[in-house]
Amino acid sequence: MPVLAGAPLSYPTTNLPGMMSAHEVVAAYWAAAEARDWDAFGALCADDVVYRGPQTREQVRGREAYIRFNAEGFDYEWHVAVERIVGEGQHAASWTEFTAADGTMVGLCFFDLDDDGLISRITDFWPEPYELPASRAQLVERY
Amino acid sequence: MPVLAGAPLSYPTTNLPGMMSAHEVVAAYWAAAEARDWDAFGALCADDVVYRGPQTREQVRGREAYIRFNAEGFDYEWHVAVERIVGEGQHAASWTEFTAADGTMVGLCFFDLDDDGLISRITDFWPEPYELPASRAQLVERY
Repeated sequence: MPVLAGAPLSYPTTNLPGMMSAHEVVAAYWAAAEARDWDAFGALCADDVVYRGPQTREQVRGREAYIRFNAEGFDYEWHVAVERIVGEGQHAASWTEFTAADGTMVGLCFFDLDDDGLISRITDFWPEPYELPASRAQLVERY
Repeated sequence: MPVLAGAPLSYPTTNLPGMMSAHEVVAAYWAAAEARDWDAFGALCADDVVYRGPQTREQVRGREAYIRFNAEGFDYEWHVAVERIVGEGQHAASWTEFTAADGTMVGLCFFDLDDDGLISRITDFWPEPYELPASRAQLVERY
């Protein structure tokens, strides 16, 4: 990861003048994805960005491959809406609602930013509905 | 949600002297859960805390019910380890690894804190492994 000349090895991204906070970077990332503005999307990612989906153990390395993955990997109409973004220093998390023809799914991502404030790592999770276990059924209500 | 007398209706929790940040509250929450210290765990939660699990549409309301849910709802040996906590103002997210006899699962939570710095809402997700869709198999590698 590139480090600015003369800068200390570690500092909060938010302290650099003119640099977006992790929260703002992730908000811009989702806005660019929804707009299919892959130039803006790629400009928020580091050259050596790494995407991981732990549920399938899939991985994409590098900005160009990651743009292609997003632009070509989902061959249906989709929309993404932000439910929550939380940012702290060079880390952030997002909770989004991803809607396609067959319904809406929740997407949960954890982001790491490099010292230039660019996204260097994305870990992406897609939780799906499941049956309530009988062992705790008497301790909850349904909504 | 209680509001301190004379305090403005909205301000960052981190500005109140002696109050823990959202990151610190969530770190203490997971430490208390791992220690089965239900008094410490409950002291971090608001009286009217609401837990929701969107995948099963289960809900638990109130501190006592929520302690019981955690203490009694999982009738097997388990351990929780924090992978990542991100906190911002009155919001936080955590990524934990939850280990039981049959393996390790990822747990992802989003937290809201009330104006007293107590946890008022927890939204809890459990993503499970699934098959990689053929539509994007040529765009990724496996790890």
